[in-house]
Amino acid sequence: MDETPPLFVIGQVESPLADPALAPKQGSEDAPEAWLVFREAFRDGLRDLAAGDEVIVLTWLHRGDRDTLRVHPRDDLSRPQMGVFSTRSADRPNPIGLHRVRILQVRDGLRFRVADLEAVDGTPVVDVKPVLAAREG
Amino acid sequence: MDETPPLFVIGQVESPLADPALAPKQGSEDAPEAWLVFREAFRDGLRDLAAGDEVIVLTWLHRGDRDTLRVHPRDDLSRPQMGVFSTRSADRPNPIGLHRVRILQVRDGLRFRVADLEAVDGTPVVDVKPVLAAREG
Repeated sequence: MDETPPLFVIGQVESPLADPALAPKQGSEDAPEAWLVFREAFRDGLRDLAAGDEVIVLTWLHRGDRDTLRVHPRDDLSRPQMGVFSTRSADRPNPIGLHRVRILQVRDGLRFRVADLEAVDGTPVVDVKPVLAAREG
Repeated sequence: MDETPPLFVIGQVESPLADPALAPKQGSEDAPEAWLVFREAFRDGLRDLAAGDEVIVLTWLHRGDRDTLRVHPRDDLSRPQMGVFSTRSADRPNPIGLHRVRILQVRDGLRFRVADLEAVDGTPVVDVKPVLAAREG
């Protein structure tokens, strides 16, 4: 298998963050509150998520450059280049973002307000998983 | 955007685990040592990974049923069904697996022996990311 099938876009991020250059690099660095807005077709899969849950949101970082294999960490040109698989760069062969967030509010079963999401407005969402105990990556 | 482009398969799992029904549900439950075997085209992105690193491996759970939105947690029929996004089921719209593993050995820059990987033999690998500090999901 050289490629997987396409991923379904199950929802998208609504956030005041519009410019990737201004977005914090990780969620803990003062990311604003944002909404995850899901598609009706996936409602049944979301029904057990509730305010207070800590989840991992997987996004498709659609602006990422998929030909990149080396980057300067955190775009700091003074730092030596590293292999992308030792970084969280959005420029990588499969630009999937992992975001650990807390659900603050659920509206209509499809709209989830979350804390600490650093993704820019319009970022496609492809999965949500529960955070597990100690071992969780 | 309804779908993303396909993911590139950057490597695959070599493991004594062949039967998903016998695989442990999470890595901490006595998963054997396994190898991640990457493709030559991605060598440069891997060059800074070393024995001792804790990483998150993203896999494509190719046997997952992508039409599933509700499951019995851990396939236990005595437990009530839950929305898949509150579970780690491989049956979900985008069957991406997250595995936190420790690199034990690197051979030839493309073969990585790892501890605690619960994926079955032949599972496609699509990304590797470093584990970050406290916040990491």
